[in-house]
Parts: sequence; C-alpha cells; structure tokens
Amino acid sequence: MAYELYYWDGIQGRGEFVRLALEEARADYVDVARQSGRGLGAGVMLELMHSRLEAHIPFAPPFLKDGELIVSHVANILFYLGPKLGLAPKVEKLRYVANGLQLTITDLVAEVHDTHHPIATSRYYEEQKQEAKARSAAFISERIPKFCGYFEQVLQQNPKGSSHIVGDTLSYVDLSLFQVIDGLRYAFPNAMKAYATAYPALAALHDTVSKRPNLAAYLRSERRLAFNEEGIFRHYPELDVAT
Amino acid sequence: MAYELYYWDGIQGRGEFVRLALEEARADYVDVARQSGRGLGAGVMLELMHSRLEAHIPFAPPFLKDGELIVSHVANILFYLGPKLGLAPKVEKLRYVANGLQLTITDLVAEVHDTHHPIATSRYYEEQKQEAKARSAAFISERIPKFCGYFEQVLQQNPKGSSHIVGDTLSYVDLSLFQVIDGLRYAFPNAMKAYATAYPALAALHDTVSKRPNLAAYLRSERRLAFNEEGIFRHYPELDVAT
Repeated sequence: MAYELYYWDGIQGRGEFVRLALEEARADYVDVARQSGRGLGAGVMLELMHSRLEAHIPFAPPFLKDGELIVSHVANILFYLGPKLGLAPKVEKLRYVANGLQLTITDLVAEVHDTHHPIATSRYYEEQKQEAKARSAAFISERIPKFCGYFEQVLQQNPKGSSHIVGDTLSYVDLSLFQVIDGLRYAFPNAMKAYATAYPALAALHDTVSKRPNLAAYLRSERRLAFNEEGIFRHYPELDVAT
Repeated sequence: MAYELYYWDGIQGRGEFVRLALEEARADYVDVARQSGRGLGAGVMLELMHSRLEAHIPFAPPFLKDGELIVSHVANILFYLGPKLGLAPKVEKLRYVANGLQLTITDLVAEVHDTHHPIATSRYYEEQKQEAKARSAAFISERIPKFCGYFEQVLQQNPKGSSHIVGDTLSYVDLSLFQVIDGLRYAFPNAMKAYATAYPALAALHDTVSKRPNLAAYLRSERRLAFNEEGIFRHYPELDVAT
C-alpha cells in the first residue's frame, strides 16, 4: 500500500524533507493535499488532525500514514521510513546518531522560520519586520556559522569518510542537509556566497546529492515546487546581509 | 555500566526531561557536570562536544553516553532509553506515536525558551525585553491553548484511557508532560491559574505523576533543582498576564 504524506500544498516547507527521502528511494507514495485530481486538498488533512475518533491525532503537518499508523514530525517520519527505504545506517546504534543529526536540522529549520516570524506565527511578516531584521542579523552572524561549522566538522570527522554525514552510505540525513543548504542559499544568498570555501565538505555533499539520478529527476519534475515566500526558507532581501 | 548524562549544572533545563525518566526507573546514572566530587564540571562536557577525535560529536547538551555511544537531543535520548527503562509502549508502532508526542513537547519547550529570548540566544533577556513581551503575549493567548488543548484531546481520546498519553502504562511522555505543566505553572502562574478546569485530564496526569513514589522521592531530593531564571521556564512577572 502506498504511503500517504500529508502536508500543505503550495510550499516545500517541512514536508520537503520527507519528499526527498521518498523520491530518492522511488517509494510508492501519495502527496495527499496535492492530489487535486482526487478532490481532496488540505481538507482531509485538517479533518484528520481534528478528528474526535482517531486514536492518535498529529499536532501539525507533515505526517505520514502507513496503513492505520500515523507518524508525525519530520525526524520521526524519517526515523520510521529510513530503514524501509534503505536510507538509514545499517548499524542500529548509528540510527540514533542519524536521528540526533536530524533533530539538529529540525532545530535549525525552526530557527530559519523564526528569522521571518520572531514574534508570532499567527501574524504577517510585515507586522514583525523590525524584529525579523534583528533576529536575522543574529541568525546570520552567529547561528549559520555555528550550525554549518558543526555539520562540516561532523562530515570531516566521519570515520567512514566525509562523503556522508553518518556511516558509509547515503542516508536521509544527507538528503536533509542538501535541502538545508539549498534553502539557506535561497533565503540568504549574500550571507551564503562564500559558504563553499568555509564549509567545503558540506558544499561537496550538496552537489553530490543534487546529481543523484532519482533526486535530479525529482528536482527537474513538477513535483518539486520552487522556493517561495510562503514556506520556511523565504528570500526577503532586507533580511540578508548587504553585498 | 552507569549511563552518563551530560547537561549544564545549575538549571533543570532540557536535561530535566531525561532526569525524570532515569529517576522514575531508578536507573544507574551519573549526572556528569554535577559531580563536583569528581572535579569534572562542564569542562568534560564541552571537551567532548568540541573533540576532534570523537566520531559523532553532539551539537548541544543534553546528551547521554552509554558506553561508546553518544545519543543527543532529548527526544532521541528518551526514544533510546524508553524501552530499556520500561518507559516506552510495548507495542512497537506506539513508540512512533510516543516519539511524535515527545517532539511536539520539544517544539513547545523551544517556544517557551523564545518567550524570553525572541531575538538572540546570545544576548541578555534585558536586551530583548520589549520583544519578549510581545512574543509572550502571543504565546499565552495562542500557543498555550493550542498545545495544552492538543494534549488534552490526545489524553481524552486515548483508546486505553486518559490516565496516560499513549497506551495503558506510564511512558516517558507522561513524565515530560508533568514537567511541561510544572514549568508553565512556574513561568506563567496567572495565565495557568485556571488550567485544571480547561485541561482536566492534563491536570490529573500532572498530579498522578507527581505522586509516584520514585518521582516524589526525586522531587523532594537535592538532585531536583528549583526552577530559576537561568533555565528554560523563567518567571518574569512582566511576561505573564495581569491577575
């Protein structure tokens, strides 16, 4: 039975981290809210989230349905799917290392979101623009170097070589790191301009992943939406550093 | 061999979610940075985080060492420890439900942190007090009801009864929910005043957990630090609603 992915239509957002794994593995899945042909849209997703009958409702999208089981949160979905898709380390202990890395990505993604929404998710960006500028400045000067420096060091110190973040084969964490770099470059092109010099292993990983046949085909397809200013990674020039 | 927990001394912080599980299970563990008798302090923790030799360095505390394996991030540590401590659901699929719930708690905790640090973690609260007021107002009016309402509904809809958040036995998620409620009541006493009426199952869970013999003994011990204004849950009266 096909996996069912539930996430907002129109943005890459957090759902994209799951899509990349499903696409790389060419898994059989339905992107429920995007299947306009089935006339579903986000309605079914919201209905499920607010169901009074469902035993285990998720707090927010994305979530994955595998038969009766609903798995929520990106890192949890990937932890669950990883072994099934051949995208998790074979050594069981390393799966906890992978999960730890993925949760660091989760934290980074939350901080990216807060660069444009530092006060309230419920309010428009325009209503918190001044605070967004202050938060973005701190994010660029302190947090990007901290996170990217960390991932670079982990890559460099991987006993199995710096081609992968954990173990000696591609994992879902590598795919997520590709997405993080892609997103940061979209949102903060000036701040990220020299990133390949500062973080060479991370840049190499981004390039290698983007050229994998299944992933490259996905990136060229209509299923890959473009980054936009409704998603997590948003390009507001006023939040980037000056050239 | 005893588990080694690495976390800052002086605060409950994120480490407390792990401590509660270890204490409830009466597990053999060393709270490394607090073992002043061993003359260690936070130095050993930071050394490990910045090691150039370690295969898998963690991004931030808390992390757990079990022999050679280092497991980082609260939800990951609990996912790893849960079955070993008898604090995870026995049905494997429910462990992903538990992990999803724990990750929702992780998100809530990050939002609590940002009520007093909405602009930059690196700067003092006093430097971002105005923004903290705005963020706290939104947190109290929108986010507390959303998160607590969600957990209340999950408790009420648990097919095994509302005494536990998942399955029919105590899990680490129940312990974490106790801590969240305890922390929110400390940080925002006015906003939380009527919480037991609004969220009866959550309030009952908090009370039941606090009375479990092992946990009650821990809460009375010197190992349980008091909440304070260096941790995640901070009581700044100006951020709470007026009485």
